[in-house]
Amino acid sequence: MFAKKKKEVVKKTLTKRSENYSQWYLDVVETAELAENSPVRGCMVIKPHGYAIWERIQHELDRMIKETGHSNAYFPVFIPKSFFDKEAEHVEGFAKESAVVTHYRLQQDATTGKLRTDPDAKLTEELIVRPTSETVIYDTYARWIQSYRDLPLLINQWANVVRWEMRTRPFLRTAEFLWQEGHTVHATQEGAEEETKKMLGVYQTLLEDYLAIPSIAGKKSPSETFAGADHTYTLESMMQDGKALQSCTSHNLGQNFAKSFNIQFTDENEKQQYAWQTSWGLSTRVIGALIMSHSDDLGLVLPPNIAPIQVVLIPITPNKEDEEEVLSVVTKIEEQLKAQGVRTHLDSRAHISPGAKFGEWEKKGIPVRIEIGPKDIAKNTVVVARRDNQNKHDILLEQLADSVKEILQEMQVALLTTARERLTQHTIVATNYQELKEGVENGKFVLAHWDGTAKTEEKIKAETKATIRCIPFDGEKDKGSCIISGKPSKQQVVFAKAY
Amino acid sequence: MFAKKKKEVVKKTLTKRSENYSQWYLDVVETAELAENSPVRGCMVIKPHGYAIWERIQHELDRMIKETGHSNAYFPVFIPKSFFDKEAEHVEGFAKESAVVTHYRLQQDATTGKLRTDPDAKLTEELIVRPTSETVIYDTYARWIQSYRDLPLLINQWANVVRWEMRTRPFLRTAEFLWQEGHTVHATQEGAEEETKKMLGVYQTLLEDYLAIPSIAGKKSPSETFAGADHTYTLESMMQDGKALQSCTSHNLGQNFAKSFNIQFTDENEKQQYAWQTSWGLSTRVIGALIMSHSDDLGLVLPPNIAPIQVVLIPITPNKEDEEEVLSVVTKIEEQLKAQGVRTHLDSRAHISPGAKFGEWEKKGIPVRIEIGPKDIAKNTVVVARRDNQNKHDILLEQLADSVKEILQEMQVALLTTARERLTQHTIVATNYQELKEGVENGKFVLAHWDGTAKTEEKIKAETKATIRCIPFDGEKDKGSCIISGKPSKQQVVFAKAY
Repeated sequence: MFAKKKKEVVKKTLTKRSENYSQWYLDVVETAELAENSPVRGCMVIKPHGYAIWERIQHELDRMIKETGHSNAYFPVFIPKSFFDKEAEHVEGFAKESAVVTHYRLQQDATTGKLRTDPDAKLTEELIVRPTSETVIYDTYARWIQSYRDLPLLINQWANVVRWEMRTRPFLRTAEFLWQEGHTVHATQEGAEEETKKMLGVYQTLLEDYLAIPSIAGKKSPSETFAGADHTYTLESMMQDGKALQSCTSHNLGQNFAKSFNIQFTDENEKQQYAWQTSWGLSTRVIGALIMSHSDDLGLVLPPNIAPIQVVLIPITPNKEDEEEVLSVVTKIEEQLKAQGVRTHLDSRAHISPGAKFGEWEKKGIPVRIEIGPKDIAKNTVVVARRDNQNKHDILLEQLADSVKEILQEMQVALLTTARERLTQHTIVATNYQELKEGVENGKFVLAHWDGTAKTEEKIKAETKATIRCIPFDGEKDKGSCIISGKPSKQQVVFAKAY
Repeated sequence: MFAKKKKEVVKKTLTKRSENYSQWYLDVVETAELAENSPVRGCMVIKPHGYAIWERIQHELDRMIKETGHSNAYFPVFIPKSFFDKEAEHVEGFAKESAVVTHYRLQQDATTGKLRTDPDAKLTEELIVRPTSETVIYDTYARWIQSYRDLPLLINQWANVVRWEMRTRPFLRTAEFLWQEGHTVHATQEGAEEETKKMLGVYQTLLEDYLAIPSIAGKKSPSETFAGADHTYTLESMMQDGKALQSCTSHNLGQNFAKSFNIQFTDENEKQQYAWQTSWGLSTRVIGALIMSHSDDLGLVLPPNIAPIQVVLIPITPNKEDEEEVLSVVTKIEEQLKAQGVRTHLDSRAHISPGAKFGEWEKKGIPVRIEIGPKDIAKNTVVVARRDNQNKHDILLEQLADSVKEILQEMQVALLTTARERLTQHTIVATNYQELKEGVENGKFVLAHWDGTAKTEEKIKAETKATIRCIPFDGEKDKGSCIISGKPSKQQVVFAKAY
């Protein structure tokens, strides 16, 4: 009975993926209570369930960032305008579409009584709300670094950043978003390159082991390289509609910023050298990737390793006289699972029916639901339902903790396997432009030879909307000829439409 | 030999408290590498050691906030100007001295090539960088809350905020600072009042059990009440110079914001009611309190329960041939202490002398230093030095973990005891205005009867620079007469100069 009711409710609220994928995404965000639009243009409110997912991501990523020798610090939210003038490419990439602080005071208008900007409180130099912190951090690093003994300098920051995006979508593209940005300084080019790759590896571990998202690791083409970097590495994941999503990037900045901000050190031979730098970031955007990797027409699906709640317990008490016993058993199960390190929530709300609870937690993507009623207790069992494949089983109470842990692990593996299969099945090789066009149109990742020129890249983008997602590290290094120009190509690159 | 060198270095770098307390504070912040001024006016850079302390505070406070039933969420950094117009008192308190975003784009000046604000990208409504988030959060709450079943709504946010302070000091008063702000909604006045007190209690636990800072809990006088609140509770702590520092506040907002932002709910009798609200916050300012509660002329002193590093291990290897053995023993000790849950750091830097290391970690306030050299190993002992009282003891290796844990606990208790004694010894009762004046001048907290009027409060402030820090909860409820006006007074209040 409950199951039927639940599905009706769900059907009413979520658009099917097959009908309108884009609306389905918004429906998942809304019905799972992850985020909503705020009254401030382009800024979202991250609701408790969405923020709890971000906290889990932060927890695991922060641990890995520290295990690889980095310390956290905090730099100002504002950047003086002149800092952007120092790095010519960087200014092109970021400074322009940013929030600009011009005044530091409001005053009440004598006539209307309303607030207005105080013309006497104009800043002598405008401040930009950070879109990324290279400039303000490197201005500081120039003072911190004197000698090769100060290197490597390995620092990370958790912060909010603002980019004035005109078309926004929750998590995927918002005017304000949350992220971490790592900023490191090295004595050698090799040191910087090693760091750039190491942190991409950390991100890949986070994505695969926790978010169950496979990705193609590779290098960006020059046109997609971070403004001010020598080169950019990326993880590109495939969403359920076949489009690519860039989950994070890791930049080898070379000596570009070191020269703009005069970051020099005395080397072991007492010679002054410009330092080598990296920066790397992962943002709340990855929650968009998480949603679009695993969720279904019933709502969000969370991989157990990242789910803030792994198991929800729902007591079923059709008769008043059973309440006490059921709640006592359920509370014991809660304690037992928590003691085993399972993130467990007991939903004891009395005014909501079990069926409504099933629907709510299903939409919120909780991996395992346990139902306990008097009939179950009589049999010494509980009903355990798995979110992704909707399997339901009676499990003996004494085997519950072990079974739950097994189911969580199985589900984690199953989600990654499914996503991996999708990536493999929907990646094709194009030997001519027609095949590339068709592949892109059908939501595929298309591997094809490219001559390495921006001209070819632009032509393909203009005609197919596909961009070069990356030059994959693991791609076969078979030489060939560009599918457009016929010129020689060192290896195939990945073309796809992207978020 | 090393000890002597260390003290010389320290004397050179830190001003003594007795010479210039204010400069000493800045010297501690600098030499402990906690923070520094940034190129952005009034904003500081929180350096890794300072940020690690903040992370420890966040970790403990976040746990307590969640244990008391709150969830974290995230709201926009920007607030539309019109939101401040909605709460008349609030606008007085906050909106005026804030950073105002007026434009969303920069452009390159054709003549100079430099960036300038694009006049075509003026916002139709200015955005204020949040000085506190009541307005933007409550605008959202009005949509979230429909029924009494949605209450209480218990939410917290970790965020950066900006207040355009003209005179700044690291941690104590900065244009940008980090904090948490709790925002809750209740069905009844009693519910809101209980919450306001409960969260003050959480802060008091954090301060006493972790930061070893005693405080006087009480209510603010109307003139110091949060703009828009019915009343404000506070924790007031005494710094080493006898001045008060407000470590946090907890506000009972009554129905003031609910009426401005139309937060209504249907009660159990199907009647529409305005909700009752609270907000409460603790910021990086508390690190200023931490510094001024315990530190000495040698530098920072950190209570073990909040120290990011509790024990630093320093290998002493005067001869090359001892290095391997010493490092092997030290590494074993590191593993052993970490396994026991002691936050331990092994300082194995080869290019820095043990003496210089002693000085550095002393300035950074690490509670326990362990020195291990070949002579110690021969005796099967190590040297354990405690930061606050400078005691040094040889400890047998097999007793090390237990001894260290004992020393950490003793030091934690000792710091709180010393701070408590200071608070008791420097709190006096004034029975007339002359005694109050003298007390305040001599750096005391002065308990005195007050008639409850703003006029008397202002007179005392103008003449002595002392403000009413709070009307203490635990104050004796003895009636008396105001030391200025002679009018009846219900209880004594705390006067002091404050940060």
